[in-house]
Amino acid sequence: MKFAVIITLKKDVLDPQGKVIEQTLQNMGINSLKNLRQGKYIEIELNESDEKKAKSAIENMCKKLLVNLIIEQYKIIKI
Amino acid sequence: MKFAVIITLKKDVLDPQGKVIEQTLQNMGINSLKNLRQGKYIEIELNESDEKKAKSAIENMCKKLLVNLIIEQYKIIKI
Repeated sequence: MKFAVIITLKKDVLDPQGKVIEQTLQNMGINSLKNLRQGKYIEIELNESDEKKAKSAIENMCKKLLVNLIIEQYKIIKI
Repeated sequence: MKFAVIITLKKDVLDPQGKVIEQTLQNMGINSLKNLRQGKYIEIELNESDEKKAKSAIENMCKKLLVNLIIEQYKIIKI
């Protein structure tokens, strides 16, 4: 069973890396850009056939290691 | 108009960062883990109402700056 975890900074947290990418794109002449934010993407494959159990295992991984819950939020998607 | 760009390493490219995360999770006692790969996630907001134009602008950004097409692949999703 395969899942994608998308980890992004919370809305009110400053994203300096995203700002740098945004400015670079603007300096390259792209004017339609309004906003850009960067995050992490993790693809996880599990040996687990029960979707509910698999999802809770991934929730557990997020809380224990992958996500800094103070400044980040996450979304789990089955793929 | 808002898009998400997901950038991942191509299937045959080694992902050392993903491997480290995978091993750490296994050392923490998570046994159901089969495979883990890490990638980047970028959320882009554009001042552009035409979806086709917006998508091609983002393709352009990917090819010119965001993605290393030799080792990475990307996916654009409207959100």
